[in-house]
Amino acid sequence: MATTTHLHLLTPPRLHASASSVPSPRLRTSASASLAHPLLLSRLRLTAPRPSRPRRRAMSVRSSLIDPDGGALVDLVTPPERRAALRAEAEALPRVRLAPVDVEWAHVLAEGWASPLRGFMREHEYLQSLHFNCIRLPDGAGVVNMSLPIVLAIGDREKEEIGDKPDVALQGPDGGILAILRRVEIYPHNKEERIARTWGTTAPGLPYVDEAIAQAGNWLIGGDLEVIEPIKYNDGLDHYRLSPQQLRNEFDKRGADAVFAFQLRNPVHNGHALLMNDTRRRLLEMGYKNPILLLHPLGGFTKADDVPLPVRMEQHSKVLEDGVLDPETTIVSIFPSPMHYAGPTEVQWHAKARINAGANFYIVGRDPAGMGHPTEKRDLYNPDHGKKVLSMAPGLEKLNILPFKVAAYDTVAKKMAFFDPSRSKDFLFISGTKMRAFAKSGEDPPDGFMCPGGWKVLVDYYNSLQTEEAAVAPV
Amino acid sequence: MATTTHLHLLTPPRLHASASSVPSPRLRTSASASLAHPLLLSRLRLTAPRPSRPRRRAMSVRSSLIDPDGGALVDLVTPPERRAALRAEAEALPRVRLAPVDVEWAHVLAEGWASPLRGFMREHEYLQSLHFNCIRLPDGAGVVNMSLPIVLAIGDREKEEIGDKPDVALQGPDGGILAILRRVEIYPHNKEERIARTWGTTAPGLPYVDEAIAQAGNWLIGGDLEVIEPIKYNDGLDHYRLSPQQLRNEFDKRGADAVFAFQLRNPVHNGHALLMNDTRRRLLEMGYKNPILLLHPLGGFTKADDVPLPVRMEQHSKVLEDGVLDPETTIVSIFPSPMHYAGPTEVQWHAKARINAGANFYIVGRDPAGMGHPTEKRDLYNPDHGKKVLSMAPGLEKLNILPFKVAAYDTVAKKMAFFDPSRSKDFLFISGTKMRAFAKSGEDPPDGFMCPGGWKVLVDYYNSLQTEEAAVAPV
Repeated sequence: MATTTHLHLLTPPRLHASASSVPSPRLRTSASASLAHPLLLSRLRLTAPRPSRPRRRAMSVRSSLIDPDGGALVDLVTPPERRAALRAEAEALPRVRLAPVDVEWAHVLAEGWASPLRGFMREHEYLQSLHFNCIRLPDGAGVVNMSLPIVLAIGDREKEEIGDKPDVALQGPDGGILAILRRVEIYPHNKEERIARTWGTTAPGLPYVDEAIAQAGNWLIGGDLEVIEPIKYNDGLDHYRLSPQQLRNEFDKRGADAVFAFQLRNPVHNGHALLMNDTRRRLLEMGYKNPILLLHPLGGFTKADDVPLPVRMEQHSKVLEDGVLDPETTIVSIFPSPMHYAGPTEVQWHAKARINAGANFYIVGRDPAGMGHPTEKRDLYNPDHGKKVLSMAPGLEKLNILPFKVAAYDTVAKKMAFFDPSRSKDFLFISGTKMRAFAKSGEDPPDGFMCPGGWKVLVDYYNSLQTEEAAVAPV
Repeated sequence: MATTTHLHLLTPPRLHASASSVPSPRLRTSASASLAHPLLLSRLRLTAPRPSRPRRRAMSVRSSLIDPDGGALVDLVTPPERRAALRAEAEALPRVRLAPVDVEWAHVLAEGWASPLRGFMREHEYLQSLHFNCIRLPDGAGVVNMSLPIVLAIGDREKEEIGDKPDVALQGPDGGILAILRRVEIYPHNKEERIARTWGTTAPGLPYVDEAIAQAGNWLIGGDLEVIEPIKYNDGLDHYRLSPQQLRNEFDKRGADAVFAFQLRNPVHNGHALLMNDTRRRLLEMGYKNPILLLHPLGGFTKADDVPLPVRMEQHSKVLEDGVLDPETTIVSIFPSPMHYAGPTEVQWHAKARINAGANFYIVGRDPAGMGHPTEKRDLYNPDHGKKVLSMAPGLEKLNILPFKVAAYDTVAKKMAFFDPSRSKDFLFISGTKMRAFAKSGEDPPDGFMCPGGWKVLVDYYNSLQTEEAAVAPV
């Protein structure tokens, strides 16, 4: 579904390849030298852009944004005039109670982040996701990427209550009816196999497994989702939760001719900012006139020691207030998905969902969606696999993958800078763990690591934690 | 590489779809009713074949066999005139000692079963295999299926010896030089992740893991393989080991216009035979004039309690001698691959390799390549997943998947027959375990379960085992 907009919005150089099988030009950056194998389809030649096309003459032009997966953005929220009827119908249906993380997935599905998926996966979708990380479109129209199973687990009792009834009502954790799932299919929840194929390990201690799989039921229920009302969290952050369609509208309103997405679940330091600003500069050099940054923190389930969403959002807004990122060319919004910490498998989902929101460039860093191995002293994933897998993933051919240049603290220039291996001893790497240690101890990080307003948000958060801990500590 | 043959070989109805993205017609059999979802691309309409094309007028026509993956059958065996030079060159190279199972994979690669793969996988191939079960062809030419990583492990010491030398010599288990691996790439062997993603479990006791991964080195080495001479086993069965090219030549010689492959690693009972003969009948009804059966027992590594290859081959030859299968329309040959017992992941490899040997129909049964869970009392895989995953697998679109009809012993008709659920109490299911129990105890199975000549082979084998056991038992 390409939206229409007005002539003053540019018809830009569309460097992303169409969904055809024509190979895209290769990425040529130093960071991607290791990706130069012919089968490794990095898809962007930064040094030799195509010339801009002439502007069209018609009074309105189609949006210049990348098409959503499957061609049309899925919207599963019931129109207001049908809600009362749906509520009445739901009263008579068998019920399934959602866990908080299921609500997040219902939200993701309802707004079309997982387009063309129209509900929790039925078995044929689940199996394709699990084995191939992609799902075949009907009528030979190729595949779309879909690397995480988006599934809903139920127990024996619920399965029995549903019997062969085609539709079920989905209740929120508080009991309110949120949605109807139609033409349901119930199939076994092979937890061990799901975990092994999604995470590449079955070691105990995977955060999402502990939260959402280990205690879940032994069946999965798939079907077509109809959400009765837009899902809200009433946490003061709902205005940040723009749907893919709202984001597309905003990009079009701003006349974006390129959208580059930055997924994160950590505070923004000046190294991130350097990277994002540098990406914009490179896109301008390529011939784009108005590249817009989608700064897109993940807002669903995260592990206990990640910085909570409200703190991160406050920190991000300080980064824009302090002028580290330009508010004119940046949109900050929340990506409602829960976090799997499934590394190379999950980064595909992170990228794919942003296509649906209109992003045609995706910045990928070291060890995306990775974490430490839960039982061994090592990274769970090879830190390079994420970007390699992403650049080869079926269904992501139309997305331009931008490998992250490594930034570190340059102790000579006293600022964050791209790492220069020829003078490696001048650089200081400040990991998330080290950053948290600074903030907890009240010690200031090196000057220029993060804007002062943003840093203060973190320090205040860790101070409040310590106050809380002191309050509950035994006297 | 399509071979040419003469006009008296038919130009048959080619029901398999070409490698384009045009969707193939759907399978319509009762056994496939559960596969009828639109995204589940079963690819054959048994009830409505296309009419035969008219014969071509030219004096010679291209082979009517299905094209190998990637368009050309890979042949990595060095021509005789170059062998001496290669041996001399190998003398000066760093060496890697192959385990028996590595030799089997070298054999598989050398003959092109894994076409278009030209050697042990480099990392970009390995990652695609592990995450997507398929590998992208260059120049946007789509993907080929490749569900098992075909990799070679080395240890720290070998890695150090190789250093940055581009080529290494591969030695057999006895020390003789077998091959050269060129333009090598060495990358980490992430065993846990490889096992989890390939088997969907990391439980201890997976036969291939115990045999070939657990003790293997922490690095993988990929490269282009040049095998110095055709690999032979000198076990009296080498004449059964036809390469994909030899099989194609044989199919063309017999004028095959359809080739249906039956993968097995067990003795053939009359239920199997019923299925194979019934498949031929159905192909004839579809309009094929000369469907040929490739009875294709797996000849590489198998688990300890499987019936050994020489016994199986003797049993298979009795089945043909006894006329249960027609030697005129059957080719018995050994598939040299080792067995992973990796269920839905492995069955794709079994099917894909047979495309390279010219088969355009593949018979898939219940729980293909499955086994019991190594630590829990259940099947490791859902028995239906194999055929479902196979019918959806990327790169296998051109193969016609024939779901196995269940055969069992009909106690009324006193023969193996397709199971009729309307009189299920009349049927006796004889599992492999039960069959082995009969053979071990010397008890005869029900009349009509297996041809007498074939049964005698099994009884003799288990008798010999018991004699051996008695011989080594403490007095």
